[in-house]
Amino acid sequence: MISVGINGYGTIGKRVADAVRAQPDMEVAGVAKTRPNFEAQSAVEKGFDLYAAIEDRKPRFAEAGIDLAGDVEELVAQSDIVVDACPSGIGADNAEMYREYDTPALLQGGEDSDVVDGSFNARSNYDTVEGADLVRVVSCNTTGLSRLVAPLQESYGIEKVRTTLVRRGGDPAQSGRGPINDILPNPVSLPSHHGPDVNTIFPELDIDTLGLKVPATLMHMHSVNVTLESEPTAEEVRSLLDDQRRTFVIPEWLGLDGAGAIKELAQDAGRPRADIWENCIWGESISMEGSDLYLFQAIHQESDVVPENVDAIRAVLGEASREESMATTDEAMGLDAPLARRE
Amino acid sequence: MISVGINGYGTIGKRVADAVRAQPDMEVAGVAKTRPNFEAQSAVEKGFDLYAAIEDRKPRFAEAGIDLAGDVEELVAQSDIVVDACPSGIGADNAEMYREYDTPALLQGGEDSDVVDGSFNARSNYDTVEGADLVRVVSCNTTGLSRLVAPLQESYGIEKVRTTLVRRGGDPAQSGRGPINDILPNPVSLPSHHGPDVNTIFPELDIDTLGLKVPATLMHMHSVNVTLESEPTAEEVRSLLDDQRRTFVIPEWLGLDGAGAIKELAQDAGRPRADIWENCIWGESISMEGSDLYLFQAIHQESDVVPENVDAIRAVLGEASREESMATTDEAMGLDAPLARRE
Repeated sequence: MISVGINGYGTIGKRVADAVRAQPDMEVAGVAKTRPNFEAQSAVEKGFDLYAAIEDRKPRFAEAGIDLAGDVEELVAQSDIVVDACPSGIGADNAEMYREYDTPALLQGGEDSDVVDGSFNARSNYDTVEGADLVRVVSCNTTGLSRLVAPLQESYGIEKVRTTLVRRGGDPAQSGRGPINDILPNPVSLPSHHGPDVNTIFPELDIDTLGLKVPATLMHMHSVNVTLESEPTAEEVRSLLDDQRRTFVIPEWLGLDGAGAIKELAQDAGRPRADIWENCIWGESISMEGSDLYLFQAIHQESDVVPENVDAIRAVLGEASREESMATTDEAMGLDAPLARRE
Repeated sequence: MISVGINGYGTIGKRVADAVRAQPDMEVAGVAKTRPNFEAQSAVEKGFDLYAAIEDRKPRFAEAGIDLAGDVEELVAQSDIVVDACPSGIGADNAEMYREYDTPALLQGGEDSDVVDGSFNARSNYDTVEGADLVRVVSCNTTGLSRLVAPLQESYGIEKVRTTLVRRGGDPAQSGRGPINDILPNPVSLPSHHGPDVNTIFPELDIDTLGLKVPATLMHMHSVNVTLESEPTAEEVRSLLDDQRRTFVIPEWLGLDGAGAIKELAQDAGRPRADIWENCIWGESISMEGSDLYLFQAIHQESDVVPENVDAIRAVLGEASREESMATTDEAMGLDAPLARRE
């Protein structure tokens, strides 16, 4: 059993903890948290050993009546690998601690790529991180783009990618964030960081990205153009994307008109936290104009990197091949049960 | 076993179907739906027999490849009771069909109260509907207010209720609805329909209500004032409300600042569809000024009436006492597992 420590138990950390616990070859060594809030309490109720991520905040846990198993250093020392799901920037600060205890660690996509030995997306570059000390699982948006680029690249060749990312302002519980009632070019100057970030996975790819922020919380939306090196039919592209793991090509008959409807479907399907781990690509939107492919895809910012973190654990430790790992991850999480299907 | 037909399988109907299936003394006879959309497909996947709610739309189900068990009339004929969860107004249209087949039916809160023999809230008037043909389970907001009024009335007496209902514009998947970027007095003239609706449960209660609509989708929010006939302390009121079934007094330490955070908590707790069946009352907001009680409560419009429908089934058929039914319902649904607790 791979013993996995999870440092940071917020939006990503709590999901990774559940996903790791579901794997047949992994166990959760414990989770670390800075504050004794409802998520800390939930960790205890789920039976995860809870560690204080910041030593001098331990009294606050005691005041809140929440028992601690120890300090985060103890968790790091006893784990085979750590998933660092701390807020952006903190992961880089923690890197020294992981090196000190000689525990390999996965950072999240909010960290700079120059902090780590390599960046990771299971579908695209699983085999490049074995034995690394520090690996970055790329962000939700970069994960979504990488899942799309990899099969297109392999099947048709890619001349250029141009994508507009219409991003949600914050997660559903982050109601204090903006924008409200506006559409913000963000950043105004090109490129957005997403293109260069995709290049950490596909160094040779020619990609331009533009970012916007809108008053929405449920999912990001990508308006994608890929100029291919060949001219498949739209139907062929659709079929290719439909055959991938972690891409869900939305059939017309489902009548899903936006992110709200997708979340409703995920709720009805009984997905934990109504999570949508797959790229959601509108089948009707997949179009070819000459060698130009166009499509819309929605990306669930809170959860699409969760299966990627699970795979990265096996990839770094050299415990399974890409296909073995992705299949195990998806089966254990319930990702291989499609969100909707005809009888 | 009580055989329950469910006519209408949208926001409320699909939730009631799951809740009924979970009960030890009930089974779902089948569900009826007008259109072969993703919810119809989900019903089939869950193993519910699907009936066409509108005869001449049957070919559309055939085209969509969804098998039907028959017409809604057949479902009504074979059910011990029907829960009608059709859109507002359709329930009243269906009343004649229920009478024709001599099948008692529960309508939802969107129907006029003069269509039915009585209106229902489990905590408040469970014993008044036994043997009725047509009963209306009051709306989400009226349910939320009734759950609050009943214990206050019994413990302290109520002189007058004044409540402002700040309502969400639509459900999360109803992104086509307004308002956006506005705060609408709705209706502008007093009273909103909520006060008279509460009077269908508490005929003698003196209550004034004002309604607003805002650009939110997650929950409704009530700003409540109740002038009591006595002067308990805020702590006594809090303790009273905390002891009720289906009221969740939010403790300060949870750090929940709004509906987004409450939904996040429900997701983390593994609630189906992140449903919040309880009134969510902020503990810190419970205040007494002389004999005036003030508090804020959030109401999950999609789900708080679901346990009420389950209880109404037993109440109409005379199958259990109020306390037996509410306890059975809550245990079977998982409602009696609190959303958060100290270890």
